[in-house]
This record gives sequence, C-alpha cells and structure tokens, in this order.
Amino acid sequence: MRATVMHAAGDVRIEDVSDPTVIEPTDAILRVTRACICGSDLWPYASMQPSETGQSMGHEAVGTVEDIGPEVRTLKRGDLVVMPFAISDGTCQFCREGLNTECVHVAFFGTNGMNGAQAEALRIPHADGTLYKLPVGEDDALMPSLLTLADVLGTGHHAAVAANITSGKSVAVVGDGAVGLCGVIAAKRLGAEQIIILGRHPDRIALAREFGATDVVSERGEEALERALELTGGFGPHSVLECVGTVPSTRTAISIARPGGAIGRVGVPQEEVMPASQPAFYKNITIGGGPAPVRAYIDELLPDILEGRIEPGRVFDRTVDLDGVPDGYRAMAARESIKVMVTP
Amino acid sequence: MRATVMHAAGDVRIEDVSDPTVIEPTDAILRVTRACICGSDLWPYASMQPSETGQSMGHEAVGTVEDIGPEVRTLKRGDLVVMPFAISDGTCQFCREGLNTECVHVAFFGTNGMNGAQAEALRIPHADGTLYKLPVGEDDALMPSLLTLADVLGTGHHAAVAANITSGKSVAVVGDGAVGLCGVIAAKRLGAEQIIILGRHPDRIALAREFGATDVVSERGEEALERALELTGGFGPHSVLECVGTVPSTRTAISIARPGGAIGRVGVPQEEVMPASQPAFYKNITIGGGPAPVRAYIDELLPDILEGRIEPGRVFDRTVDLDGVPDGYRAMAARESIKVMVTP
Repeated sequence: MRATVMHAAGDVRIEDVSDPTVIEPTDAILRVTRACICGSDLWPYASMQPSETGQSMGHEAVGTVEDIGPEVRTLKRGDLVVMPFAISDGTCQFCREGLNTECVHVAFFGTNGMNGAQAEALRIPHADGTLYKLPVGEDDALMPSLLTLADVLGTGHHAAVAANITSGKSVAVVGDGAVGLCGVIAAKRLGAEQIIILGRHPDRIALAREFGATDVVSERGEEALERALELTGGFGPHSVLECVGTVPSTRTAISIARPGGAIGRVGVPQEEVMPASQPAFYKNITIGGGPAPVRAYIDELLPDILEGRIEPGRVFDRTVDLDGVPDGYRAMAARESIKVMVTP
Repeated sequence: MRATVMHAAGDVRIEDVSDPTVIEPTDAILRVTRACICGSDLWPYASMQPSETGQSMGHEAVGTVEDIGPEVRTLKRGDLVVMPFAISDGTCQFCREGLNTECVHVAFFGTNGMNGAQAEALRIPHADGTLYKLPVGEDDALMPSLLTLADVLGTGHHAAVAANITSGKSVAVVGDGAVGLCGVIAAKRLGAEQIIILGRHPDRIALAREFGATDVVSERGEEALERALELTGGFGPHSVLECVGTVPSTRTAISIARPGGAIGRVGVPQEEVMPASQPAFYKNITIGGGPAPVRAYIDELLPDILEGRIEPGRVFDRTVDLDGVPDGYRAMAARESIKVMVTP
C-alpha cells in the first residue's frame, strides 16, 4: 500500500510500504477514507533531522474497519470509525477518568516509528479503546467535521476546558490555526461571552468570526497586550487558549490573562522551559492542558456536529489525494492553507 | 519607634525610625503585638544588594489598632487584628472574588519601600479591607496559631486549593519550611488520604507527621522521584504543593505529579522561567498558585484554630524581641529554627 513518509525537514514522500496486518489480538486494521495534515506535523517538517527509514506521518483519520484481531469486542469489519491521534486501551484508570492521552498504553500515531494515517491503511493497537464508531455512512456530508473529532476539535475543546471557560467569561485565543479556530468553537459552546482571536490572516479571522469570535487583535507583542487589555476593561480575559506552543506565544498568553485567570495550553511546547514564570505567579494564573483526550470528548462533541450546531469541518480549505500530500505540507507551512484534508 | 531594616544580604539592623502616622483617611496605625520572620525574608537576606536607606522588613503581624483615619468604618482603636501580608481594599472586583492579593490597590508589606511589621508599629493602608478583627483578647494562648493567619497557614491552604486537593487524594509537599508544614495541615483539612512530605530535617519531619503527614521522602533528585512513585502505586500523587520556589523544587514537583494531577505553587519563583514545561504538558499537569489571598481565607481557617482542630502555631520554635531579630534571621537561614516569632 502507499503511505506518507517524512525523511527530513521539507522532505515528504509517498512510498510503497507493506500492508498492515493484525499482530496483537486487540488490533484492528483501518482502511483510511479521510485523513489530514496537522499543524503539529509542521514542526518536524521544519526541523526533522535526515533519517534513512523516515517517519510514517499522520495521526487523524476516519475510516472503515478492514480486519480485527480475535480479542476485539466492540468493532466489526465495515464499521466506520474515528481514529483519535492517541492509542488508548479504554480500560486503565486514566482512560476511566476520561484522560485517554495518559493511558498506561498511550502512544501517538505517526511519531516514534508508529505508523501514520496519511496512508491507505494502518494498524490500530487497542482498537476497542482507541477507535470510536460513527453512527453515519461513509459518504456523509458531515465527514469533514467528523474528521476533526480525531484531533483539532477535541484539542480546541481541551484548551477551553483547561482554561476554565464557563458561561459569561471573556476568552482570548492565541493562534489562528485549525486548533485555535476550533478553540473559538469550543469557547462559544461553553458559553463564553467575549471571544478575542489573536491573528492577522484575513481568511482565518473571517472564519473565526463566523465561528463566534467577537473581537480581533491583529497587533503583536506589547501592542497586542495593550489592545487585549483595552478590549477587556483593562484586566485581560479570564481564559486564554494557547494554541501555538512557542515561548513567545506562551509569554503573550500569560501577559494578557486576567489576574486569577487560566491558560489552557494545547500547542506542543517547543522549548524545555516555560517563560514568564514570575508574572504567572504574581498574577495567580493557572496553566493547564496537554495532549487532549479527544477520544473521551467525542461523546460530548459528536451530537453538536450531527445536529448541525457546529461546523468545525470548515477549517479544511483544501483536499488532496495521497500524491498531493507533499504539496499539502508545503501549502500549510506557507500558510496558504489552514488545514488540508487527504482522501487516500 | 524601633523597626527592623535590612541594608544588604546578611545585614539586618534594628533602628530608630519615625513613628507611623495616618496619611490617607482609610489608614490605620497598627501597634504590633506579634510579628515573625518569613521564609521569603530569607531570599533578600541571601542576596540583597547594599542599600543606604535599607528595606523595612516583615509582612506578618497580629496587633492592636492604635489610630484610624476618618474613613475607616469597621475598625476602632483597641481592636485586635490580624495583618495579612498584602494590602487589599476589600471592595474591588478581585477582592469581591476572594482574590485579595490581586486587588487593584495591592502592595506587599516590607517590600519596595513599604513599611514592615518586624517593628513596634506600622501604617496600614486600606485598613478596612486589609485588617481582620479577631474575636479574642491580646493574651490568648492561641496567639501563635492566629499569627499564622497572616501568611503561612493561608499560604499553605492556597497551595492545597490550587493543587485541587479533595477528599481521598494523594498529596506530596515539596518544602519542609513553615509553609510546607502548613500545607500538610491544609491537605489534611481538605481530606487528603495520603500526605507525603519531602524533607530531611528530623524536627520538621516530626512536626509534619504530627500535622498529618503519612509518609516521608528524604531522598533527593532521581531517588526522591522513585520513592514518591513507589509510595503512590507507581503513578505519583494527584496533588503537589510546591512550597520552595526554586527551579529544582519545581522540577521535582512536576516530575513526581501524577498524570492529570495539579501543582499548587506558593514558593516565590526565583527564576524568570519555569522548568520542565514539556513533561508538564505531556503529563497534562495543571500548575496554579501565587501570592495567597490569605485575607479571604481567614473566615474558613479561623474557626479551626479557635476550636483547636489545627495548631499551626507549632511552626514557631523560637521567640525573640526586636533586638533578637537579626539573630532570628541567622537562625532561620542556618535552618536552626523553623520559624521565629517576634514580640516587639
């Protein structure tokens, strides 16, 4: 079969690889019908050291179950499922608490030698715990939105939950990528009264407004801080969604947050240290978040998609087949595209 | 009158200074009956650059109201009060939310040129909001415990609240100073089932056990981590109280915390950056805390002192008069004393 393999920064290839097979009795084989390229895939795309074997890429998919091991209990061949970005067994104490990304068997698709979903098919360990069966057909018009349950919608929601958003609160979203835009959706769902998006790309800002953003801060650095304070009566937003992961974006999040406020961070941190520890302390700011337990959030988010209340699939502004994946990476890295869907 | 003035690292003097007087109509003058030396006073004691004018020291006191300005409404001369370490107006939106240390008029006694409480008397701005009237007499036997309401008990409680301690949780306390010991009291009050104190001083450990600690980790670094995991079924404690403020102590707190757990930090951060941002992220750990709104916590904590359920005053193991204050600093810095009470 064909799969996406990254060999070095900027070097993404579509290659012929072995077909996946059931190895463990709890495995399933997923035939991918929709996958996508994630903002987090752009970090290795920018910096990966050359590798002969390369890394199989992709961690978001919808697809059909093609084969199952003898111990898979809840899935059968032909089931249409969402594949969240993390493997979880569904039974350990962390999974039972709804924190599947801290599962004792956790691993992330498309990293550290694990197979990725920008491919025709892939092996799914702990299939019962990992996959989520969808109640619709393969050709459903909602497919782009359903695909966001694999990562970006649940990740935006996790940021919103970690940032303690409740009804009537003011919120700022740092980052106008697909996760930030889904953070706007999540903030609105949770009842935020004011949602400020920090960004400067007209197409992303326009979408953010349609998703529920009430204000835009296009300034940067000190000016962004001033503008955010001005918009929030001088004190800053109660909740900040940090959807980038760099030191400057984290510093911005801390500097604009209201004293006593909370930051939900879902941008993968690119540095070992967190900046602005002292301001965060003196402002009594709470900082939470991490890899989102998107598997656990599907129960809550799916009905809103099925009933048309939210349309996170609108973050996809380009669709490619497997051959188009390398150019999809290029387009997202150049910020020509918000998020690229892949139909393998 | 006489007051404690620090002129440089290690240089603490008792000096004659002007008597405080009412300046603003909302001021009171507090005659100090009990003050103390705080672990946080040891930071400038270790590193203060030489200063000609010096810094008036001390931010914890119990005393009697000696004079009031014309707009003080709730206090009268002779009232016995606790003086929390921060000034708060009691009326702004942050004070109304119980976050007095983020008051729009906040300032900290004994810092940045503000007068300190290791003195015979001091001026109290925003007296109605800042001071808390006690329902006992000046000679009450509970005075040492009541004095801890000014800082260390409320600060330990804040760490426990920020660390999301609830009934049945496992807790670790990093730091065996007075704040850490009060953190043990607070953890027990909030229902923690297992309370692990990290420390190695026999007298402090013994007191921690009397306050409710169930386990002790005296190892350091990697060994401390292993031991803490071993004590908590391999995953680490749900809640960690960071009561030191250094990079190594924060790193320890993050490394031992259970995935999905929370860290309440009340040790004043000594570095601009926080370590271990990536492990904290991948473990979905929440980090909160800051200067404790101890004024707001008195309503909750005072009854437990008055009714004898907690005895935080036991952290005081030495009492000095004003002349003894310089030696009190020395003793605490040398860790000969846990906490020194001052009777001016």
